Amino acid sequence: MVKEVVYSQHVEFGDCDPARIVWFPNFFRWIDAASRHFFLQCGVPPWHETEQTLGIIGTPLVDTHAKFIRTASYGDLLQIHTTVAEWRGKSFVQRYRVTRRDELIMECDEVRIFAGRRDGEATGIRALTIPHGIRALCE
Amino acid sequence: MVKEVVYSQHVEFGDCDPARIVWFPNFFRWIDAASRHFFLQCGVPPWHETEQTLGIIGTPLVDTHAKFIRTASYGDLLQIHTTVAEWRGKSFVQRYRVTRRDELIMECDEVRIFAGRRDGEATGIRALTIPHGIRALCE
Amino acid sequence: MVKEVVYSQHVEFGDCDPARIVWFPNFFRWIDAASRHFFLQCGVPPWHETEQTLGIIGTPLVDTHAKFIRTASYGDLLQIHTTVAEWRGKSFVQRYRVTRRDELIMECDEVRIFAGRRDGEATGIRALTIPHGIRALCE
Amino acid sequence: MVKEVVYSQHVEFGDCDPARIVWFPNFFRWIDAASRHFFLQCGVPPWHETEQTLGIIGTPLVDTHAKFIRTASYGDLLQIHTTVAEWRGKSFVQRYRVTRRDELIMECDEVRIFAGRRDGEATGIRALTIPHGIRALCE
Repeated sequence: MVKEVVYSQHVEFGDCDPARIVWFPNFFRWIDAASRHFFLQCGVPPWHETEQTLGIIGTPLVDTHAKFIRTASYGDLLQIHTTVAEWRGKSFVQRYRVTRRDELIMECDEVRIFAGRRDGEATGIRALTIPHGIRALCE
Repeated sequence: MVKEVVYSQHVEFGDCDPARIVWFPNFFRWIDAASRHFFLQCGVPPWHETEQTLGIIGTPLVDTHAKFIRTASYGDLLQIHTTVAEWRGKSFVQRYRVTRRDELIMECDEVRIFAGRRDGEATGIRALTIPHGIRALCE
Repeated sequence: MVKEVVYSQHVEFGDCDPARIVWFPNFFRWIDAASRHFFLQCGVPPWHETEQTLGIIGTPLVDTHAKFIRTASYGDLLQIHTTVAEWRGKSFVQRYRVTRRDELIMECDEVRIFAGRRDGEATGIRALTIPHGIRALCE
Repeated sequence: MVKEVVYSQHVEFGDCDPARIVWFPNFFRWIDAASRHFFLQCGVPPWHETEQTLGIIGTPLVDTHAKFIRTASYGDLLQIHTTVAEWRGKSFVQRYRVTRRDELIMECDEVRIFAGRRDGEATGIRALTIPHGIRALCE
């Protein structure tokens, strides 16, 4: 059994485009929030704390693959079901299923890393070995 | 030879997150703009016109797969190189390469459809057979 | 006594900029959601219904005045307290107080209209006289 | 004569809402970009440099007042005309006029500060006295 955390999201008027359906980049906004909530619910501290303690500034994406199955529109209440599908040495696969009651709206697999700052660079990042403590909290 | 259209995008302060790099959903915002500009540059009318003439309300996503290779930050000028990599009966693959001068920042393959409204539904959509005229403009 | 509706909003990582505080356009996203929720909580139907029944396509802004008192950052839970401070013939003043527990974060007064489509125009809008029924629901 | 910098912005499909007009928070996104471009065009270094040299992390808002005069929709090309209307000791008024050719779309007056970090705080900010050098570049 893997841990699953569910994050709820109301779809707003401004999240929809002139075709009256969710403009798809907004799904990625919500998925990113669901990703962070997954870690918080598992007990991982917020990134501004891990930056001080572990040098982790966040979990940026390396790769994402999403399928859009049904449209959603404003007034809808969505559930984002988040799990970690796979742990690798320096990356992990985070999986999302976005539903509206029992309907599947979209699903997404992301490869993310725990990122640290590159020495002496303002914006460069590098993948850190995933700390055992963090992985243990999430399994 | 396939047609390629290049769309330029300045990265702004507000496009970046507390890790000082582009917050990834913004890449999808820009890619969506690049998708629309590709069609405009090829001579396809805007969607509010095609809605009247062909019943096409836009080109929503069915599937997207993106790889993030290098980070970008505010002050960067990005180029989004857009092509249609494949035409299918009721969908097509639009391909994007996002570069900063000669560096590859991210790349993305999307499956999109030409969408029409489902009869009598406010937000439901369906895939239309791609009109020959539109495909001819883009090849 | 005027009706007050409270809308809750979690601040996310991606809502913050490289200064690690909420990038201010996001406050307007949330306020717009709070505006719509105010009407829904008062029993006003969603805009896609009022478009059919009353010709109302939404409540766009005419004027907005906001004061930013304290910064907010990700992890914060904000409350947006919404009222209608004044009803005029063809417009109304919607007032927002955004708090984090007992701290005032920002406040905003907006003048909005109930908008209808201009005849024969795809994007033009005009202010409608505020229907008595809607006003009665909100007072 | 005050310096004026003009920033151009294409309106995209995804910037518009189901009423087919620009969703207003997007105007604030563009104005924020225009604000930053004003300083860059005047020769002020980017904020990640001023953070090192002057302790300035950006120019957050204290107050904003906007009037929305005409709607805009996708396909429009907007010009944002930016000036500093007033310099005060620890704040300044930045003024924007958004036009589409010769039509005024919206206008906005913002009070902004040059912000530094509060000692020992991750997200707290304080207003700095505006450096003479920066003001001289912008006048």
